[in-house]
Formats: sequence, C-alpha cells, structure tokens
Amino acid sequence: MKIIVDAFGGDNAPLEIIKGCRMAKDEYGFQIILAGNEKKIKKVCEENNLKTDDMEIIDALDNISMEDEPGEILKSKSQSSMAVGLQNLADGVGDAFVSAGNSGALVTGATMITKRLKGVLRCAFAPIIPKNKGSFMLIDSGANSQCRAEMLRQFGIMGSIYMEKVMKIKNPKVGLANVGVEEHKGDILRKESYKLLSESGINFIGNVEARDIPLEGADVIVADGFTGNIILKLYEGMASLLFGKFKEILSKNLKTKLAASLILKDIKDMKNQIDYNQYGGAPLMGISKPVFKAHGSSTAVTIKNAIRLTGDYVKENVTKTISEVLEDMNIKKQDGNEQN
Amino acid sequence: MKIIVDAFGGDNAPLEIIKGCRMAKDEYGFQIILAGNEKKIKKVCEENNLKTDDMEIIDALDNISMEDEPGEILKSKSQSSMAVGLQNLADGVGDAFVSAGNSGALVTGATMITKRLKGVLRCAFAPIIPKNKGSFMLIDSGANSQCRAEMLRQFGIMGSIYMEKVMKIKNPKVGLANVGVEEHKGDILRKESYKLLSESGINFIGNVEARDIPLEGADVIVADGFTGNIILKLYEGMASLLFGKFKEILSKNLKTKLAASLILKDIKDMKNQIDYNQYGGAPLMGISKPVFKAHGSSTAVTIKNAIRLTGDYVKENVTKTISEVLEDMNIKKQDGNEQN
Repeated sequence: MKIIVDAFGGDNAPLEIIKGCRMAKDEYGFQIILAGNEKKIKKVCEENNLKTDDMEIIDALDNISMEDEPGEILKSKSQSSMAVGLQNLADGVGDAFVSAGNSGALVTGATMITKRLKGVLRCAFAPIIPKNKGSFMLIDSGANSQCRAEMLRQFGIMGSIYMEKVMKIKNPKVGLANVGVEEHKGDILRKESYKLLSESGINFIGNVEARDIPLEGADVIVADGFTGNIILKLYEGMASLLFGKFKEILSKNLKTKLAASLILKDIKDMKNQIDYNQYGGAPLMGISKPVFKAHGSSTAVTIKNAIRLTGDYVKENVTKTISEVLEDMNIKKQDGNEQN
Repeated sequence: MKIIVDAFGGDNAPLEIIKGCRMAKDEYGFQIILAGNEKKIKKVCEENNLKTDDMEIIDALDNISMEDEPGEILKSKSQSSMAVGLQNLADGVGDAFVSAGNSGALVTGATMITKRLKGVLRCAFAPIIPKNKGSFMLIDSGANSQCRAEMLRQFGIMGSIYMEKVMKIKNPKVGLANVGVEEHKGDILRKESYKLLSESGINFIGNVEARDIPLEGADVIVADGFTGNIILKLYEGMASLLFGKFKEILSKNLKTKLAASLILKDIKDMKNQIDYNQYGGAPLMGISKPVFKAHGSSTAVTIKNAIRLTGDYVKENVTKTISEVLEDMNIKKQDGNEQN
C-alpha cells in the first residue's frame, strides 16, 4: 500500500509530518510517498538525522497555507504540495492521501482534482468522536455549510459503511441530529432527511437529540456541515470548560492537592479517552480515493495515527463499497421509476 | 406586582408548583395568581397543609399535557390552565406569566393569545447558561426551527436588552454562533445575520465558534432555534458525560474513594455552577408581557427561582425597552428609505 503524505501541511510541517511518516513506516510497513519541496525535505531530514531514503518524494515547489482561500489550490497554489499530492493520487501513483493542511483547500482540491465518487453529491468530513461507550462518526462536521436532504442521506450511507468496515461495528446505528426524537421534529431539511434516511437500507434509528449524542446516541450521527461543526466544536469547548474547572478544584488547597495525587492518572486516562484528537483527524468521505484530514496541529504521533487509519480505509475498500451501494440504489430508483 | 402561575404545567404539578409559589410569596412578597382547577388546587393544599388563602385563583377546568399538539391550546385546550392564564395576562389581570408546561403550546399560546410586541417577528426561548466566568443568554434555544436573518437580528437586540437590564451586564457582548470567526463564514443565514447584527447599534462582537461558547464566548449568543437547541442540549449531554466519568473514577477503588471524600463538596459546587437549571428556566422573549418557561421537571425551588427571575423581568421593564428600541429602529429605517 502506498500512502501519499502532504509534507508541508499543518502547523508543525515539515518536521513533525516527516517524523510521523517515519514512525508509520517502521510500525506498519506502508510505503510512504512524501509530497513537497524535495530540497527542503532533504535538508530537514539531514538536520534532524531522519532517515527517508526508503520513501519516495514527489517534488512540489510551493505550499498552501492555512490563510489561503480554498479556491487558490486550483489557481495560484496549483503547484503546492497538497495540489500535487492530490493529482498524484488521482493518477494512481498512491492509494490514499493524508494532509494536515488547509481544510477548505483539501475539500476543494479533492473534489476538483481527485474527484468525487460517481453519484456522490458532496464529500464530507467525518471525524470519529468518543462517547460514553465507544465512539461515533459525525458526518458532516464542516465541509458543507448548506446541505440538501439527499446529501444527508448519502452521509448516512457513507458513515454506515465506514463504521462497519473500518471500525468493525456490525449493522451500525445511524441517527439524525435533531431537536427532538419524533419524526415530525426539526426544520424542513430534517423532515426530508428523516424520510430519505428511513428508505436507505441502513440501520436508521431516527432522530437523536444533542443531549444523547455523547451518551448513547448512535454509531453514526448525520448532520449538515454547519450543525456538525457546531457539535464538534462544542464537544471540544465543553471538555475544555469542565477539565479546566476540575483542574481548578484539584489545585485549590492542600486537601484537594492530596486528592489530585490519588486520581491524577485516572483523570489523564479519562481526558485521553474523551479527546477526539486521539484518532488523528477525519476521513474525507465521498472522494474517489481515500483522503484523510489530519489535525492542523498534528505532531508526529498524530500523523502516525492518521496514516494507520488511512491504511484501514484503503484496506477495507470503503470507497468501492460506497460506490457499489450508491450505484445499486440508483438502479433500484430507476427501476422504480420505470415501473411507475 | 402580580404574577400568574400555571398551577397545572410540568411533571410535578400541581403540588410542587404551588409549593414554589408559596416560597416565592413568602420570600419576595409578590402577589401570586394561580391558574388552574380551583377545586383540585384547594384539595391538594388541604392535603398538604399548604396555605394559599393569600393567593388568587383563576379557575380553569382543563389542562394541556406535554403530549398535546401545541396548536390544541387554541382549540380543544382553550380552557386549559395555560390558555386561561395567558388570556388573563393579555387582559391585564397580572403582570407576567410563568408555566412549566408544554413548551410548544406556550409559544403558540403566548403568540396568539397574549400576542407579540409590535414589530417583533418571532418570540424566542432565551435561557441563561453558565460559562467559564459568569453566564450568557442563548437566544433562540428552540422556539423557531426555521429563521430569517431579520429574526436573528431581533434576537440579538432583545438578548442585549435583557442581559443589560436584568443581569446587569453593561454593554453586553453579542455574538453570532457560527463555524468560524471570519465575517464570510457559515451559511447564507449567518452571512446575512452578521451584516444585520453589525448595523443594530448593539455591541456585536461578530461570530463566535462553538468551542468558545462555554469559555469566553459572549454575553448573548444568537442562533436560529434549531442550532440553539443543539447547543443547549449538547451542553447538557456533555456535562452529563463528563460528570458521569468523574463519578466512575471517584468510586473506582479505595484510593479514589479517599480522593472523593476530599473533593466531593467542591465537585458538587462545580456541578451546581455549571448546571443551567439553576436559573429555573428561560424567558420567552418578544411577547407583549413577560412570559417565563420553567423547566418541565421543575420542583418547588425551581418555580421559586423562575418567579424571582420573572419579577426582575417585570421590574426592569424589559418589554417596554424592547418595544421602544425596535420602534426607534423602524423609524430610522423609514427615514433612511425616505431619504433614498
């Protein structure tokens, strides 16, 4: 398996990215192709005593920053490591692409250069997020601010396939993020999506209130990208608030400091368990080949984890299954129309 | 000041409601008018040795349940305690109305029976929610699933007035819940709302990402009712998840149980501080007279707190100020149009 990695994406590029690739190669044995300025990569590796002679390099002279407008990946930044990496993915040079760079540019670039799977209306960011027991996929968490019901139906289908194949959850429960559990709840988008999701051959359990998302919820939570992003970031904000308050208590006085010494390890374990960063980022679902968005703040370990997950994404042939399921639905729809 | 209270709204009606009224009367000296079946009220009071002879009762034979369709308040449930209470509020029998009953029915009833303030497009639920330091108003938290930008502008104005007058925050910061801080972020509704809020003469600080809502955020968070409801309930769900996990740790073994004994009081204090239920419910903003929605699960103390907050809502003349500000804006708009 060959995984192309954007060596110049993210806050800690290129050093931490290359280090992460080194770790992934040593640990999982994947072939790694680094996309980025070859001279700079070699210089950094030399300075840091990093061995990369067993990795390919695709030379790309430019890079796209977090501040660049997404559309620039097709224009002034068409020679960036991200654009060149995505082009090589499209050309079949590698099996998947990982980047910790500009999210908007990755959506635009993956859509326009690597292209969506046939029949997919929109690609979606789909992070795996820990909940009370296990974890769930939140799809879409921010690629599309404005969605139609048919898109949400596809998000549900793609999420279900990913959770079953990669996360090994049998018959994953798919829920629609909504303001009440009853079928008639929510705005027009939710009502229409509810209907379409019910008719999609997946294990659709209906609406899930936001209160239940971190508790029992579902294995896949379907949302438009606006709502999904609110959920994702509030998750993070609330964890930050509560751990902050807890920390205040534990350092308040001698008594609470003693308590802290007794539970510090457990608290740390819990914090790690709740931290959605543990998964290294989010697959971009719906593209013709696996694309994975690692966190902008990725360190070497994050990149290693992102590459491992991307490996599973490739190995389990998720894109092929999505493509087959959507095609099958389309044929059935056409048959239905013909019979009418 | 006369406050009408729906004696038959909420899971614990009528006993806990009447008890709460008793406490509020004794503590704050408000005149209380109970709306509900007089016979039943008297029977409950007798059985529980509750003194209510210093409260008026408005007889209402029926009541509306949590399962009733909101619209029924105008039809089959027009003689319910909620409908009769709202009618008496409209007729000037009392200065405000408090109910722990069916939220949807309260929105419909308040809008159709008591009526909105002139110029207000939609009323909105606006709970006060604790954050890292202090608290914020979330407006709308669920009265309107589908909103236009002009409504969000009014939510911002109403929230700003309430926080200044009732919560005594000078020049409250108003933020728009969005997926990024930059002006161009979000869907069409957000982009249009951003523009209108900027031109509203309030202290609009721009977009607030969901991550920052529980941390620094703003004093007023403006959202459509769908997004607001997701925020409100995820707040609750995350608090539940994290306190649940803390609890697991603290009862894990002898060592952590010892730690628990040292910090239990602090944890409880923190839990109370974070609990948005401490405020007893949410004002329904935009109605011609103060209407307050207490939590469905209200106990006597919740009702007492709800009545106290409602008293402030009346005393500070919030509805009059909202009405004046909106009228003033309208005049300026007309002047502007005439000049063009």
